[in-house]
Amino acid sequence: MKIRVYYEDTDVGGVVFYANYLKFCERARSEAFFLRGLTPILDNGHFVVKDLNASYHASAKLGDLLDVSTSLVEVKKVSFKLHQSVYKDKEKIFEMDITLVFIDFNGKVKKFEPENLELLHSLFT
Amino acid sequence: MKIRVYYEDTDVGGVVFYANYLKFCERARSEAFFLRGLTPILDNGHFVVKDLNASYHASAKLGDLLDVSTSLVEVKKVSFKLHQSVYKDKEKIFEMDITLVFIDFNGKVKKFEPENLELLHSLFT
Amino acid sequence: MKIRVYYEDTDVGGVVFYANYLKFCERARSEAFFLRGLTPILDNGHFVVKDLNASYHASAKLGDLLDVSTSLVEVKKVSFKLHQSVYKDKEKIFEMDITLVFIDFNGKVKKFEPENLELLHSLFT
Amino acid sequence: MKIRVYYEDTDVGGVVFYANYLKFCERARSEAFFLRGLTPILDNGHFVVKDLNASYHASAKLGDLLDVSTSLVEVKKVSFKLHQSVYKDKEKIFEMDITLVFIDFNGKVKKFEPENLELLHSLFT
Repeated sequence: MKIRVYYEDTDVGGVVFYANYLKFCERARSEAFFLRGLTPILDNGHFVVKDLNASYHASAKLGDLLDVSTSLVEVKKVSFKLHQSVYKDKEKIFEMDITLVFIDFNGKVKKFEPENLELLHSLFT
Repeated sequence: MKIRVYYEDTDVGGVVFYANYLKFCERARSEAFFLRGLTPILDNGHFVVKDLNASYHASAKLGDLLDVSTSLVEVKKVSFKLHQSVYKDKEKIFEMDITLVFIDFNGKVKKFEPENLELLHSLFT
Repeated sequence: MKIRVYYEDTDVGGVVFYANYLKFCERARSEAFFLRGLTPILDNGHFVVKDLNASYHASAKLGDLLDVSTSLVEVKKVSFKLHQSVYKDKEKIFEMDITLVFIDFNGKVKKFEPENLELLHSLFT
Repeated sequence: MKIRVYYEDTDVGGVVFYANYLKFCERARSEAFFLRGLTPILDNGHFVVKDLNASYHASAKLGDLLDVSTSLVEVKKVSFKLHQSVYKDKEKIFEMDITLVFIDFNGKVKKFEPENLELLHSLFT
């Protein structure tokens, strides 16, 4: 997943605004679904963020071409955790652990079905 | 409607990113509804932008406190036009004419009801 | 220039937020520079938006893959005008005329040098 | 610090996009400076985010009026940590610990001067 840094991503400090790394990581998560002809809104529910733990190692600037890598850390009954890193050339400039919870369309936490688990493993392992 | 310029609004050029003036104007339109305990999503439909015509006169920077003024230009059967201006101190730095169309929840263009017209006049005149 | 619609681009209305089409068009303008190993910040100046005239024909939703096309309409002494369109499949869903002014690094309007003109023609014709 | 949720803050899921809570918290940090006639860009340096640890407890939707509270957790030689919470009515819907590092205008980490420390304590305690 390649991501170009545009004007909209930068701020007056001259580098990417800190919240925008979370946008880049979301793009990578959704793109995993889109590339298989799916969307992150499944038949029986969708995902909301529960918590995240992020570290900023270096900055990115206008025109940089970044890479986002995503790997599955663990899957529980109603949630899963990913580790996502953003690279500029070979340097890791940002990384986070993020936990997402599965909820139904009434907003209630929902247990994964076997096919949901299979999907998560195929998308992010 | 006062709007402070924060980091998120600026870009590497040091001033407010050009698309963000449209955000500021949208805030002013919605705030007119919120201040009366309403939302821009009405019982019988909501609004989508049809066209806009914007002029950028000067720039705004981090920390600036801006004013947005909104006035009703005309109301037609299914649409209405506003003129919105953004001021920094007394200087007009941005203005646009924007036309919004009324649509129902199936996305079909919808004629205003008399109470919709009354509401528009009370909010924006 | 292909642009995927992600969560960040949508709003509670279920479609792309109206200001974000301006982001998509800015990406296309900057990408023209990046693809040649340049940036839109030139040695002798850079560009600011003077005015734009936009029409919204249809909406885009999460996961859509959009195309942005950009063509040069005219070049004057200190400014140039582009026509930019956003397509979803073959349908034009958004278009705008946008005029950008060339300014130096003190913010003064600046006449294009011959090499600036050459560059604009090579990037956008 | 009161923050209204506008269209731009929401996404197709119907609630505030997860990265936007970081925008709200940044507004509160900068506003502490602005309210004293200062900016977060000091004479001898400015701040960059080093890490953050965020928890999402509940969601916010269009029109909600949120409160952001900010308190100083600790100050070290070159960095400081804040705890920031976002409330909807009396319910805490988001919180994070965030560590910011002080850097000079060449991007080098910089030790706080005594007046910087005094300022941080007066702004955030």
